[in-house]
Amino acid sequence: MSGNTFGTLYCVTSFGESHGPAYGGVVDGCPPGLALSAEDIQKELDRRKPGASRHVTQRRESDTIEILSGIYEGKTTGTAIGFLVRNEDQRSKDYSKIAEKFRPGHADYTYWQKYGIRDARGGGRASARETVIRVAAGAIARKWLAERYGVSIRGYLAQVGPLAIPFRSWDDARSNAFFAADASMLPKLEQFMDELRASGDSCGARVNVVARGVPVGWGEPVYGRLDADIAGAMMSINAVKGVEIGAGFAAVAQKGSEHGDEMTPYGFVSNNNGGVLGGISTGQEVTVSIALKPTSSIRIPRRTIDVHATATEIETTGRHDPCVGLRATPIAEAMLACVLMDHALRHRAQCGDVVPPTRLG
Amino acid sequence: MSGNTFGTLYCVTSFGESHGPAYGGVVDGCPPGLALSAEDIQKELDRRKPGASRHVTQRRESDTIEILSGIYEGKTTGTAIGFLVRNEDQRSKDYSKIAEKFRPGHADYTYWQKYGIRDARGGGRASARETVIRVAAGAIARKWLAERYGVSIRGYLAQVGPLAIPFRSWDDARSNAFFAADASMLPKLEQFMDELRASGDSCGARVNVVARGVPVGWGEPVYGRLDADIAGAMMSINAVKGVEIGAGFAAVAQKGSEHGDEMTPYGFVSNNNGGVLGGISTGQEVTVSIALKPTSSIRIPRRTIDVHATATEIETTGRHDPCVGLRATPIAEAMLACVLMDHALRHRAQCGDVVPPTRLG
Amino acid sequence: MSGNTFGTLYCVTSFGESHGPAYGGVVDGCPPGLALSAEDIQKELDRRKPGASRHVTQRRESDTIEILSGIYEGKTTGTAIGFLVRNEDQRSKDYSKIAEKFRPGHADYTYWQKYGIRDARGGGRASARETVIRVAAGAIARKWLAERYGVSIRGYLAQVGPLAIPFRSWDDARSNAFFAADASMLPKLEQFMDELRASGDSCGARVNVVARGVPVGWGEPVYGRLDADIAGAMMSINAVKGVEIGAGFAAVAQKGSEHGDEMTPYGFVSNNNGGVLGGISTGQEVTVSIALKPTSSIRIPRRTIDVHATATEIETTGRHDPCVGLRATPIAEAMLACVLMDHALRHRAQCGDVVPPTRLG
Amino acid sequence: MSGNTFGTLYCVTSFGESHGPAYGGVVDGCPPGLALSAEDIQKELDRRKPGASRHVTQRRESDTIEILSGIYEGKTTGTAIGFLVRNEDQRSKDYSKIAEKFRPGHADYTYWQKYGIRDARGGGRASARETVIRVAAGAIARKWLAERYGVSIRGYLAQVGPLAIPFRSWDDARSNAFFAADASMLPKLEQFMDELRASGDSCGARVNVVARGVPVGWGEPVYGRLDADIAGAMMSINAVKGVEIGAGFAAVAQKGSEHGDEMTPYGFVSNNNGGVLGGISTGQEVTVSIALKPTSSIRIPRRTIDVHATATEIETTGRHDPCVGLRATPIAEAMLACVLMDHALRHRAQCGDVVPPTRLG
Repeated sequence: MSGNTFGTLYCVTSFGESHGPAYGGVVDGCPPGLALSAEDIQKELDRRKPGASRHVTQRRESDTIEILSGIYEGKTTGTAIGFLVRNEDQRSKDYSKIAEKFRPGHADYTYWQKYGIRDARGGGRASARETVIRVAAGAIARKWLAERYGVSIRGYLAQVGPLAIPFRSWDDARSNAFFAADASMLPKLEQFMDELRASGDSCGARVNVVARGVPVGWGEPVYGRLDADIAGAMMSINAVKGVEIGAGFAAVAQKGSEHGDEMTPYGFVSNNNGGVLGGISTGQEVTVSIALKPTSSIRIPRRTIDVHATATEIETTGRHDPCVGLRATPIAEAMLACVLMDHALRHRAQCGDVVPPTRLG
Repeated sequence: MSGNTFGTLYCVTSFGESHGPAYGGVVDGCPPGLALSAEDIQKELDRRKPGASRHVTQRRESDTIEILSGIYEGKTTGTAIGFLVRNEDQRSKDYSKIAEKFRPGHADYTYWQKYGIRDARGGGRASARETVIRVAAGAIARKWLAERYGVSIRGYLAQVGPLAIPFRSWDDARSNAFFAADASMLPKLEQFMDELRASGDSCGARVNVVARGVPVGWGEPVYGRLDADIAGAMMSINAVKGVEIGAGFAAVAQKGSEHGDEMTPYGFVSNNNGGVLGGISTGQEVTVSIALKPTSSIRIPRRTIDVHATATEIETTGRHDPCVGLRATPIAEAMLACVLMDHALRHRAQCGDVVPPTRLG
Repeated sequence: MSGNTFGTLYCVTSFGESHGPAYGGVVDGCPPGLALSAEDIQKELDRRKPGASRHVTQRRESDTIEILSGIYEGKTTGTAIGFLVRNEDQRSKDYSKIAEKFRPGHADYTYWQKYGIRDARGGGRASARETVIRVAAGAIARKWLAERYGVSIRGYLAQVGPLAIPFRSWDDARSNAFFAADASMLPKLEQFMDELRASGDSCGARVNVVARGVPVGWGEPVYGRLDADIAGAMMSINAVKGVEIGAGFAAVAQKGSEHGDEMTPYGFVSNNNGGVLGGISTGQEVTVSIALKPTSSIRIPRRTIDVHATATEIETTGRHDPCVGLRATPIAEAMLACVLMDHALRHRAQCGDVVPPTRLG
Repeated sequence: MSGNTFGTLYCVTSFGESHGPAYGGVVDGCPPGLALSAEDIQKELDRRKPGASRHVTQRRESDTIEILSGIYEGKTTGTAIGFLVRNEDQRSKDYSKIAEKFRPGHADYTYWQKYGIRDARGGGRASARETVIRVAAGAIARKWLAERYGVSIRGYLAQVGPLAIPFRSWDDARSNAFFAADASMLPKLEQFMDELRASGDSCGARVNVVARGVPVGWGEPVYGRLDADIAGAMMSINAVKGVEIGAGFAAVAQKGSEHGDEMTPYGFVSNNNGGVLGGISTGQEVTVSIALKPTSSIRIPRRTIDVHATATEIETTGRHDPCVGLRATPIAEAMLACVLMDHALRHRAQCGDVVPPTRLG
């Protein structure tokens, strides 16, 4: 395969380009008997949809899911679930001005070099619009994880540019288009984003994701570690440049007596390890944090080259998110859901007969 | 598979436990005709070997590689390269005192819960001694990458606990057992480590790795991104809790006009993206940074439980590295080498006929 | 994954059911720059289409391919090629009479037992209509193989029930809806099929497939043998019960002095090995033969059980092929094409630098 | 990977050459808690060992298994099981006379062309001695399958050259070095083999394998069919040229009313399908038949070429089995065991929660 499929047992295949007729996905390996409707998926797609506020791209897409297979009388059959999301609002002409130039920080240069072909319309396959497939696949995974194991997966926007947003409550995170977990930060956020948009520039962001209810024992040692698969999945999201599990980079300055989470009969005392030890889940919350770089398509002129390797300048005036991180929360949640579901299935394949020894309270 | 194999075309399989007779590895997919001797591998194993200074574990292991297949008359044949590294200095009795207790921050609890079985001797399969296989596999990869594409892969220790170590030169990084790229920091480092060891505690570290000479075009889009595979490989190293590519988490606070690397006919002006755009190499240096947590086996007493879930205390008095990061540089280099080689092969499989368009200076 | 994807580098994913809205496929790993139009695929789909003669199912399907991604300005881009084939002529009510019974020889019983769910409409996912996706994926593979390596893949119907059909010419095989390579057999074939249909029974068939122009060196030793992958791919076609390479089962009664193909500077003297030695192509024709069982849906009453495990009888009166083998030739060709393309890519990944030693004339 | 690993969840990796120091294997994915000793594996290796009668190669190999990992206190731990079988009786000089020539029907020509390198000693990686690893991996699989599901896997030699050997009893099959299931055939077999050996020629064989006790539901539809994986695994055995499931090629001449196995509340009435429908096990015996070609190394002079593509003659006088089929029974059993175990794990991963509907018998 060439990068368009991921997962070992819960397997997601994706196709589609930003300015083609549709994106499509195939989920293979979902257990049979899961009650699943288009609405179950649609509600997650709606969380990631463009146009939810003035701070994100104004491209008008309903992002309507069309399920083509794998469901019979409202339940999964165990066979491949195929689905489409049509593109409805392509404006390829937006790209005519930059069709021969490369955007600094964008994938159009590397795609062109790798494949020898350039689809200049909206980033082609490199467009972050592909994440619609991830969110759909994640919606199925999170439903199964919730019903079968009681796992819940939630995320929030933890920082936008220089602006850190503390965690106050999950209710807050659900209540606004920023996924900010402290609603009192919203005025500051709005102001920051308005100024950013006016400046024609873009900014980075940090998103945190947490899975609660993951049983102890998921993950495979050595190369198939749960955290290794999470790191790979997160880094595969457009614009992600860093991944942390638990204490992450803060662990560098910690001592062992501080970092190592003590245990009592009632559970772990802390969670520096982010719910994973030796690549296997501990039963605590799995905590992940990701860094997203600033959008590369900005209105500020930048030095670049064209397809003839001639020096030139570029300004990008299409409809772009000034901060891709604002819409990344549902995507990161979805990727975590897919990895956890994959490992749930892998674990019961090998260890389905293990009688769990005494567990913590 | 259950976590003991990684790679798509350059494929590494590993087995062995800390207190069993041997570790073994199988490298599948190496191109034929590569001149390869045991010495080529041994010199890399020697860089990671225990006992190189008083600051690392005093377990006495020669870590001698024994190649069993895949080489004929000094060249790789294209078939599987099998090899062994014998364990020579097991002291299983060191573990008798803690055989029924769990070390905070260690994998022994999760292995026990996952598999229902406990091998208390030296961490069993969870021991970082497994990284000997990674380094051997990486030695083969880096030799091929160097000869075929001129790629060089180097790393250095960038931080130990609170002590940041600036990069001064690769010569410095090669000249000391710490892999510190600024030799003038050595006295401070020695002192810090001596105090740490005396305190019975451990600390975290940061290691940076750089691959120079990677051509533009390696990596697959969407889920098979070069940086995604790097992130997964790095997070699979024992004790790693965070991975960054290029600017990493610093990208959160950057503006697009600052982060996006401008291009000129002579090359990129900066390298915030760490040599990867859209999951595909740009031709710049690939730059990776990892966070390693403090060793979990420390002499300081800590609260924990035993196999009956009863509250107890634990002190670990075996031979342990007080800072696993000190020996992590060759391991991180090896993992980067394996991922790059895998993608070199994957790229030429699909794109072997692409005539590269005009490239940057 | 759960069986809906195959291939290592040329990777085909399939979804869809006989009575759902559409079948869909994703081809991942196709090299960029291949000229590819819907017509290239359509012409192969038309060869397998139902309704081509009175001897096959009368279900009316145009089997129109709709390409959704992976092609830009008439060429493959190197990204995933997604496509749909809509179902147009479902008659689910045909199945109402047998919705609670199991057809002897059919997969409906095993699907029901495996998944605990029964989609009685037309075989659901087990329907041979899924092969439309294989033929589409094969059409892309054979185009690339022909253009890049001059490989041609052709097949013919070698036996229908008791009626052996000798090979006379490829022209003959192309000239009739049976894919019979001896047109003089057509009257006998027509008569046999008319009688079979009148009797309400079905029959088996043998199909032979030949790939010409395969270079020496494709295939991986041991478990990844070219012939092993061909055998797996062929046996995965609905109704196939046997696979032979070269002399196949005739090799049992051969002596070594008869079977082993002698070599001269001008080439091999014979081809008992079917173009594969040690799992690697020899440069000769790759010859494959498959056995297809009789269709299980017949009008003759048969003993069976219902979903309550009660004894009953069943007659199947829907629109079914009385001999699935009649339409199997393009499907077997397609599977051979996909396997060969996969190995072409795998070979150049590992052995792209091998300078071929002296070859045979 | 490049062909040296097989299986999705029960994963076998193999290395070693006929005249190197050792063969080695890694089994990844075995469930923890299986009681496993070296003897469990050794007894299967002894069934395949050379030198068991005058009719097979006289190479003296004890084929002693050395387990290096994955077992603790007599039980599998769930981590990778690594093992070695040392080569003890290499006679590389046997090959000096043919070092520059190619044996008709042998893989030495294709390996040389593929890899550009020739290891003339005893077939190198292409030697059937590699099957020792398959038998070891199969020994673990069959033990688990027997204990966990009551599955038993047995095989017998069904034909040698022109001599068909009927099935009389499993006791007979166990009682002689030929694995002949009718002991009354032994005098004829002995005579045939003596004459064959005297003539310097070799012959083909057919081996049948049967798995009893396989539950209904194993196997994945479409490309991951149980029978597809069996066919691939069988065709990957050295010298195999054909595979049949159930009626196999006899199905070509059958009518649907004869082939389709009728069902009653007490079970299936016949087993033409060989225990697999739609790629999923039916609960009946899984029946497989394979064709093995005659050994290519014979004493009779044959036309061939040398490494300079010059015409020459070759006679092979080393120690070779005149009929590789005589030792193939344990190998075929082992491959079937590995595939079944893989599918047992895959099935419970996806369908572990399915409550089986009413079953037959």
